[in-house]
Amino acid sequence: MTAKRQFSRLPRHVGIIPDGNRRWAKAKGLHPAQGYMVGMERGLAMMDECLDLGIEEVSVYGFTMDNNKRPREQRLAFGAACVKFVEIAQERDIALKIVGDHTSAMFPSVLKPYALERIGTGKLKVNMLVNYGWNWDIQTAVKAQARPEETRGFQDLLASADVSRIDLLVRWGGMRRLSGFLPIQSVYSDFYVVDQYWPDYDHDQFYEALNWYSKQDVTLGG
Amino acid sequence: MTAKRQFSRLPRHVGIIPDGNRRWAKAKGLHPAQGYMVGMERGLAMMDECLDLGIEEVSVYGFTMDNNKRPREQRLAFGAACVKFVEIAQERDIALKIVGDHTSAMFPSVLKPYALERIGTGKLKVNMLVNYGWNWDIQTAVKAQARPEETRGFQDLLASADVSRIDLLVRWGGMRRLSGFLPIQSVYSDFYVVDQYWPDYDHDQFYEALNWYSKQDVTLGG
Repeated sequence: MTAKRQFSRLPRHVGIIPDGNRRWAKAKGLHPAQGYMVGMERGLAMMDECLDLGIEEVSVYGFTMDNNKRPREQRLAFGAACVKFVEIAQERDIALKIVGDHTSAMFPSVLKPYALERIGTGKLKVNMLVNYGWNWDIQTAVKAQARPEETRGFQDLLASADVSRIDLLVRWGGMRRLSGFLPIQSVYSDFYVVDQYWPDYDHDQFYEALNWYSKQDVTLGG
Repeated sequence: MTAKRQFSRLPRHVGIIPDGNRRWAKAKGLHPAQGYMVGMERGLAMMDECLDLGIEEVSVYGFTMDNNKRPREQRLAFGAACVKFVEIAQERDIALKIVGDHTSAMFPSVLKPYALERIGTGKLKVNMLVNYGWNWDIQTAVKAQARPEETRGFQDLLASADVSRIDLLVRWGGMRRLSGFLPIQSVYSDFYVVDQYWPDYDHDQFYEALNWYSKQDVTLGG
């Protein structure tokens, strides 16, 4: 709780792209799949950090439809890491929603309840993207709005409608790109890149991102 | 033409966010509006650089619907800068399209022909965003697809449907955010930030961005 005082202004909603699991494993001479389980543990550490800081909402990439082009053993590994994450995370003081196409065979069936509704009433809203696709997300809204009886605007009809605007987006692993991460919620996000691979996550990296964010002015495009 | 040889891999399509015109003017003790006309000249220089390098397509922010919240004299200044840019640019070897809501009073009426169709058959495709809004862009597709006789996918129905996927997005002025810049075309873009204000544009800054881009691997989210 003391850490919060370090920042003059905290983001309400943080997005996380935990990239570099495979590169980390390769650099250590491990199988690429082994990076994901270590990454999952770092995800729990980071979530606990958000809880301590009093951040209200966090959205994190589990895996995407684009990722499904990878070899089967990697797919099994990142799917298993997502399941393990949820298993442990649900014990924390969170409210968890999974955003992703649960009708696909690529979606871990045990996670389906979290895709249907937000589970838990804890103080941190956690949105986990599992079998997520930016095109699928927007198409969901487009198809819904094509129904003549539908009067809600397209943002309220996105598959990710329950995910709010992201203030700060932090990507690990050095790449400076969104890779399809919640494009509507990210239009005004401040984007910070950590060069280290995600399995080398350390809270100081996150603090640096938060410190940088506290110095940005929010204009929402104005 | 020699410059092209410096890069092992050039982006096909470059996006440009020319930010910092007002901060530049303020730092020089000038009126904020004066920054825009200098910025316009830098835009022409950068377009010529793209022509020299053999880049195929460039998209650039003129102004957005969000920007229309600014004082009237600023609005007049950035509108005038866009008109002047088009007036000079159309003499170059380009094919120019303006993407923006031309039905609004905020849209400079003299530019309307460019919003209705691409004008010119030159080798560089230039897309200029004038009175552009990310929400308006996507809503255009949503509304079109709600028509029962419409069979095209939503990406073909965007107001920006004629703008292709962006490979490299370069923002001047130090901010690390998209500010609503073509969200669909930017989902996989590599994002490079130049700290200098746009009116301090120098082609070396652009070369550095291109050099950085040439070392990135393109995965399209895979």
